[in-house]
Amino acid sequence: MKITINEIAKEAGVAKSTVSRYLNGGRISQKTSDKIRRIIEEHNYEPNSFARSLKSKKTGFVGVVAPALDSFVTSKILIRMDEELRERGYTTLISNTSHSIEREIESLQNLQRQKVDGMILFATELTPSHFELIETLTVPLLIIGQETDRTHCIVFDDYQAGYQMGEYISSKGHEKISYIGVDEMDIAVGKRRKQGIEDGCRANGADPVQFFKSGFDFDSAMQATKKCLEHSVPSAIICATDTIALGAMRVVREKGYNIPADISISGFGGYTVSEMIHPSLVTVAFDYLETGRMAAGTIARLMQGEEVDQLQRPHFTIRKGESVKGKK
Amino acid sequence: MKITINEIAKEAGVAKSTVSRYLNGGRISQKTSDKIRRIIEEHNYEPNSFARSLKSKKTGFVGVVAPALDSFVTSKILIRMDEELRERGYTTLISNTSHSIEREIESLQNLQRQKVDGMILFATELTPSHFELIETLTVPLLIIGQETDRTHCIVFDDYQAGYQMGEYISSKGHEKISYIGVDEMDIAVGKRRKQGIEDGCRANGADPVQFFKSGFDFDSAMQATKKCLEHSVPSAIICATDTIALGAMRVVREKGYNIPADISISGFGGYTVSEMIHPSLVTVAFDYLETGRMAAGTIARLMQGEEVDQLQRPHFTIRKGESVKGKK
Repeated sequence: MKITINEIAKEAGVAKSTVSRYLNGGRISQKTSDKIRRIIEEHNYEPNSFARSLKSKKTGFVGVVAPALDSFVTSKILIRMDEELRERGYTTLISNTSHSIEREIESLQNLQRQKVDGMILFATELTPSHFELIETLTVPLLIIGQETDRTHCIVFDDYQAGYQMGEYISSKGHEKISYIGVDEMDIAVGKRRKQGIEDGCRANGADPVQFFKSGFDFDSAMQATKKCLEHSVPSAIICATDTIALGAMRVVREKGYNIPADISISGFGGYTVSEMIHPSLVTVAFDYLETGRMAAGTIARLMQGEEVDQLQRPHFTIRKGESVKGKK
Repeated sequence: MKITINEIAKEAGVAKSTVSRYLNGGRISQKTSDKIRRIIEEHNYEPNSFARSLKSKKTGFVGVVAPALDSFVTSKILIRMDEELRERGYTTLISNTSHSIEREIESLQNLQRQKVDGMILFATELTPSHFELIETLTVPLLIIGQETDRTHCIVFDDYQAGYQMGEYISSKGHEKISYIGVDEMDIAVGKRRKQGIEDGCRANGADPVQFFKSGFDFDSAMQATKKCLEHSVPSAIICATDTIALGAMRVVREKGYNIPADISISGFGGYTVSEMIHPSLVTVAFDYLETGRMAAGTIARLMQGEEVDQLQRPHFTIRKGESVKGKK
């Protein structure tokens, strides 16, 4: 009655290793992935039921701790990850921490007490408390969004993404470029992304980038943009996130400038809404679906005691839009 | 060491019944609510620990089933609900169903097997399978977003919200009004909201509203708006959601019309982004924080065997913006 990996491979017309790669979250084409998923669904294939019955102490639960469920990035990754884990026979338990580091640590401890088989943390900052906790863990922990050599991590390549955005904007002839970024406590976004942007702009001979600090929210983005425009009017503003870019757009318009005729604006994130607005936003779109699959595959392999690369980086692209214009 | 309800009341300078009302999710002022929350947090008050130790079969888990974690409305309600349940000593287990009705039913069954003490379903549609399932449940179920007399529900007053929006738009002098709405299988949004809008517009003597059907997504909203403009150009377009309004805005602009000078546009939902864009969107903002508190309080009371109103309706307001203009 039950279908085997061999039979799935035969039905899909692919090698057995491709099916394994699919089950472990490795890279395969979307077409093959869709085909295998369909077969698995048709036959109700449950990859972990056998392994699990052997090690009866496993609960089949994967704990996920997220600072905010209303983040575009988190929810996109989470949904795909949840689907992939479900297909592997796991149930995800999601905890929301409302941006409290204390609650983050507490949630990880609670999940461990609830005997989850593995944990995934969406991290915005790694503190000494995190490192202390990691020492005490008895189940695998995967961190998404920040990098450390103390556990497995999936991190966007913020330096490269920043570099390519800087290169793109300066290649359009912009020389006076401002960057509205965030605190450097956030290593990934605050430090690496900024450094990449500065180096990328320099590559095409732009002036040194003027930096203005903002929070992640709309209001502080508006404040930072006001400061930026008071300082001196740039021909392009690169923003650390799409939300910050929306704040910048509003202020730039209120001050009577046209986007992109007077000032070009770009973001990071590739939120759905950034394509809907006018002008549509030039932004870095990280591959959140790949990230979700990668996270599910990684934690699944770690829970089964397999080897996984310590650090993995999902792909990204620069999404072109109407908010950036070439300067003559 | 542990603080009692009496002591919380004393410290907050309110009646004991006010603290109980807070704990049960009843209506109290924001100021009082904040004060009580602060005291509870300072003292690590855990309201359910005693009750739970008495009934040792309780697990302290509340299962939540949501069609999509990347919905603005769902995530806003969920975050507040989760915080409120946590303060009451419960842990929420969240399941994402990716808009599959089958998976929705399955998730509710799984949660029951996992011995949760209560369940909350974010519903987009109620089918015969839902009603069958409800018959077999042994723990309380609260439904958010759709209405049935078979269990407890929290539903936005879509008729009233639609009516007030219709009244507002027509009071601005608009007579030729189009409505871009969704399928009537969705009783709340598809049927009630539409009926309210039609009646509200009529109240100020506008012509009968022209209806165009869309899905909930941006692309189908753009299609519907194209059909709407081909049919005849209205002076105002009311949209069933903010996402649909964003699609309508893009098409209206592409066709060379100015918003709001030529065509006024409004939405429903009160998404954060609707305030950020230009022109900012006139929309119905439902009180999602109240909804989250109400949901947590309701399921907590139901799990403790207390009486709760079968049907509750959170508040809403019409959020004014720049996307609607009076017609001379």
